[in-house]
Amino acid sequence: MGRTKRVMLPVTEVDLTSIKYDPLQTEAPHITGLALKLFVKLIELPLIGSLIIGHLKKQNKMNEMLRDTVIPEPPMFHPEFPPQEPESGIVFIKEDAKSEDRVESATRCLPHYDPASHQSSDSTPFRYWKIRNYAYSYRSKITTPSTVAEHVICAIEEFSSKKAATPLLISFDAEDVRKQASASTQRFEEGKPLSILDGIFVAIKDDIDCYPHPSKGATTWLHEVRKVPKDAVSVSRLRSCGAIMVGKANMHELGMGTTGLNPNYGSARNPHDPKRYTGGSSSGPAAIVASGICSAALGTDGGGSIRIPASLCGIVVLKTTYGRIDIEGSLCDGGTVEIIGPIASNVEDIILIYAAILGSSPADKISPQPSTPCLPDLSSHENIGVLGSLRLGKYTEWFNDVFCPDISNKCEDALNTLSETHGCKVVAIIIPELDEMQTAHLVSVGSEAVASLIPDLRDGNGKKLTLDSRVGFALFNSFSSSDYVAAQRLRRRMMYYHMEVFKNVDVIVTPTTGMTAPLIPESALKLGESNLKVTGNLMRFIVAANLLGFPAISIPVGYDKQGLPIGLQIIGRPCGEATILRLAAAFEGLRMETKQPASYFNNLKRK
Amino acid sequence: MGRTKRVMLPVTEVDLTSIKYDPLQTEAPHITGLALKLFVKLIELPLIGSLIIGHLKKQNKMNEMLRDTVIPEPPMFHPEFPPQEPESGIVFIKEDAKSEDRVESATRCLPHYDPASHQSSDSTPFRYWKIRNYAYSYRSKITTPSTVAEHVICAIEEFSSKKAATPLLISFDAEDVRKQASASTQRFEEGKPLSILDGIFVAIKDDIDCYPHPSKGATTWLHEVRKVPKDAVSVSRLRSCGAIMVGKANMHELGMGTTGLNPNYGSARNPHDPKRYTGGSSSGPAAIVASGICSAALGTDGGGSIRIPASLCGIVVLKTTYGRIDIEGSLCDGGTVEIIGPIASNVEDIILIYAAILGSSPADKISPQPSTPCLPDLSSHENIGVLGSLRLGKYTEWFNDVFCPDISNKCEDALNTLSETHGCKVVAIIIPELDEMQTAHLVSVGSEAVASLIPDLRDGNGKKLTLDSRVGFALFNSFSSSDYVAAQRLRRRMMYYHMEVFKNVDVIVTPTTGMTAPLIPESALKLGESNLKVTGNLMRFIVAANLLGFPAISIPVGYDKQGLPIGLQIIGRPCGEATILRLAAAFEGLRMETKQPASYFNNLKRK
Repeated sequence: MGRTKRVMLPVTEVDLTSIKYDPLQTEAPHITGLALKLFVKLIELPLIGSLIIGHLKKQNKMNEMLRDTVIPEPPMFHPEFPPQEPESGIVFIKEDAKSEDRVESATRCLPHYDPASHQSSDSTPFRYWKIRNYAYSYRSKITTPSTVAEHVICAIEEFSSKKAATPLLISFDAEDVRKQASASTQRFEEGKPLSILDGIFVAIKDDIDCYPHPSKGATTWLHEVRKVPKDAVSVSRLRSCGAIMVGKANMHELGMGTTGLNPNYGSARNPHDPKRYTGGSSSGPAAIVASGICSAALGTDGGGSIRIPASLCGIVVLKTTYGRIDIEGSLCDGGTVEIIGPIASNVEDIILIYAAILGSSPADKISPQPSTPCLPDLSSHENIGVLGSLRLGKYTEWFNDVFCPDISNKCEDALNTLSETHGCKVVAIIIPELDEMQTAHLVSVGSEAVASLIPDLRDGNGKKLTLDSRVGFALFNSFSSSDYVAAQRLRRRMMYYHMEVFKNVDVIVTPTTGMTAPLIPESALKLGESNLKVTGNLMRFIVAANLLGFPAISIPVGYDKQGLPIGLQIIGRPCGEATILRLAAAFEGLRMETKQPASYFNNLKRK
Repeated sequence: MGRTKRVMLPVTEVDLTSIKYDPLQTEAPHITGLALKLFVKLIELPLIGSLIIGHLKKQNKMNEMLRDTVIPEPPMFHPEFPPQEPESGIVFIKEDAKSEDRVESATRCLPHYDPASHQSSDSTPFRYWKIRNYAYSYRSKITTPSTVAEHVICAIEEFSSKKAATPLLISFDAEDVRKQASASTQRFEEGKPLSILDGIFVAIKDDIDCYPHPSKGATTWLHEVRKVPKDAVSVSRLRSCGAIMVGKANMHELGMGTTGLNPNYGSARNPHDPKRYTGGSSSGPAAIVASGICSAALGTDGGGSIRIPASLCGIVVLKTTYGRIDIEGSLCDGGTVEIIGPIASNVEDIILIYAAILGSSPADKISPQPSTPCLPDLSSHENIGVLGSLRLGKYTEWFNDVFCPDISNKCEDALNTLSETHGCKVVAIIIPELDEMQTAHLVSVGSEAVASLIPDLRDGNGKKLTLDSRVGFALFNSFSSSDYVAAQRLRRRMMYYHMEVFKNVDVIVTPTTGMTAPLIPESALKLGESNLKVTGNLMRFIVAANLLGFPAISIPVGYDKQGLPIGLQIIGRPCGEATILRLAAAFEGLRMETKQPASYFNNLKRK
């Protein structure tokens, strides 16, 4: 009569040696354009809709995991951090200090800066300027923020006015940028820059408030129902350091996709190949940094939204520990998986921006509070010793489960080079129930998105969404309240497994994404695309950091045969930002492979 | 086009002076017997069912609150306790001490015991024996546990074998009771009782494991899919003190109702009037204590399940702070509102049982951990001074919103007498959004119940449930995952309002229930009853302690015109058990009204 229930063993009794890796396969049709339009009409019908969604969920065993399985653990509703030993060679950063002072502390953690290295000729025609390059140039009067602003404005306008517009920003006001740049220029003239970030150009993802811009979340309507009275906390921290906000960066609508496709405002393109996606949802932030127009950007990451585009665009991001950065003033306010994190072209810039924006949400909004933040002291000789002591956990079958073997090969090469150079050890690990982890994450992030938006969606705005968002919401609306609770039981299991792993290793390494930048189907541009197989490949290594709140970094480690960037992900322990930043800097220092990143953006020549 | 959304003000900006009390009205038909059977058939049909449930939810504005309202606060997924100042005149109890030692500490907190007071003649033909009366009698060889056991066994068997059986226990084994009593008797003979609880008879609600009995949760099937390998943690703590477990007490199936009706095994009747309900879901535990057969019982309380029957049966219960007592080995394992609490005929027995069973769940199962437990030192002269300093918060319009004015009048009388006697102050308070609190609680408790049971319900056992459980599950299954998240946002608001109130008062006082014991309709006994209006009256004052994790006590303060008991509820701050126990003891000491409690059980004459 009934369905057969499955009973999970208590998590402490699971025999890890018996675990077999089960390749994750997301089953769903790939639909674009008019077919997608028809599909959305069908799934939004009362009866047929729930039959189709039910079929999709069955194919992906969702009800089997959430409704037919006895999960013995009590739910864990947000990442709860078991206490962790602090590592050596770190500098604690005071959360309640002024942002300018935190950035100053961070600067002292960086290796010695030699302006000559910046000015030396280089074989590649295009190189990223680091923040310290700008800072040096401003202080040496080589250039001014106002001069740079004109280049930035020119580049942004050009990409928005092309025949096939590829807008990096959704909201942009050249005069506002000029005004900020001019104020910064004047501070330099007076010899009183606010910090090393003064005059640094930063883009803010469209789901983080940046006054006076609206926050649309890339929708056509959200700004009409949600006003922006002031900067988000993280943005105001950057501003107090003198950073210049260039505007609101393009994104996948409401963060509901991993490609960055945007039928509402046009899609940002991958700087390495304009026929390809940037990845998303933080498409604009990644593209504007990867193209060298801005030094940094802020994005949100609830399911890889900064790590995926960083991997596909060949840049660096830090997914911060859950709760580490106050999310007030962002659309993700109120979730249990999403965070704000910095995006930059290199690790030291990530460190500087991170130091500026960190500081957790007040305790009455988020619990538990993360422990004191810290940074690796890369300037000290101790760094080499600490590096050599680190153990990198690698789950080989998972690591190798990628769409194209170039990805795992390049990541493997990077690990080997690092081990040979610094003596770090790669340790084999096993993580069970990866399928369940994906489902638990999907239910959590989807349900929390619905909870934030449902009053507006029911108030007539649901039909104004892009088609792929509507596919997402049709799925998310099918989750029951008990599915949500079951997902939180799975969260506790996954936390246990990871904490067991972290007893033996300091970080977990994976490719950031299971594929490099996918092509944009022509039919998708106007109406959208639903391709859950691509989503599955892009998200395969993503969700532990969201569901369990771990920090993670993505750094470029090479290119596939088509010349597309490949990212390596380093997942840290709770509040373990210092360790993963230290490792990322070491990987970067190996300079394994360099390549002109942005033929498409070669017109940006500001030197 | 769309529905109009409502936007709540941030909780810190709500003007409490503008709040108008809005009498809570639960809208739903009253259905019993065959009509209920038909109704369940209808609501379990795919389309019609969701239309009917949708209509019920609309009448009660549930979607309006959860889906059409912007709730600005982030979710709070379980009670998070803001730090509280400890009161004076308390004794801290070590959680990690042995139960026997904790009971010993608790005994020292009680007023001096005078055996003469127990033996003095009294005008009432029936009086409860207190635990210390048994302890004295055993130690003075006036009686033995084995002698008492025969009375207990005789009484239990009689009530189960009547023409209209009113089973107090669902699982009972006379030989097992005799064996325990004999072991206890022998300990007394050897002069080595384990604690003051040695030889004390205790009943365990059927949703808490008590080896070798099955745990059926009053269903017909649960024991087939869920084995009981050992005692629940709370039961094993009692056993190590020498207490005698008489068996598994009757309850409303799966705790899904507030009356205690049980078509599966027969319903326990109210000792004050066998035509009336005991209240539930802990019907058996309350009836067996109110009838004087057992000194104490353990029950669970996720939505008043011990407080409601205590109020209707004229006895005392302590709803403990969320997390205070390890719930391992109970069916409520994994929820965010339910706790285990002691049931007894008087406050000092509650203190002794509470001291035996306290000790929180391990930190890897529950977060945050409650702070160190404490008890009021009732033996010290300081007690009077502390009592006089207490401020009792009363929300008058809410307090008076009862089905029959006798209830609020008697509760008011008790407050006045207490103020006159001890100098405590009654302070006017206002608590907004009581409607929303009920809804947030219903969604939480319902969703968590489904999450625990859904694999078994889908595995064919859903149809084996009683009809009123099936009505409950039909409603609970209609909650979406975003409803659950929205409910948790409301939880954070309610915590804020209560913490604001607790800045000015030490406790909140209400009637425990909005009505006294309702009559059992003849048509309900076999097939069941769905009467959400009665549920609304019984639960009106209940849910803050569940949703927000506060401790609460219910004590009898008098009788209505029909001679039915009236309970007063004292809600404490998080971990404020000591304060409410102190007040409860003071209320009890006033001896406002005494009345023969159990004409129905007059055959129980063990002296």
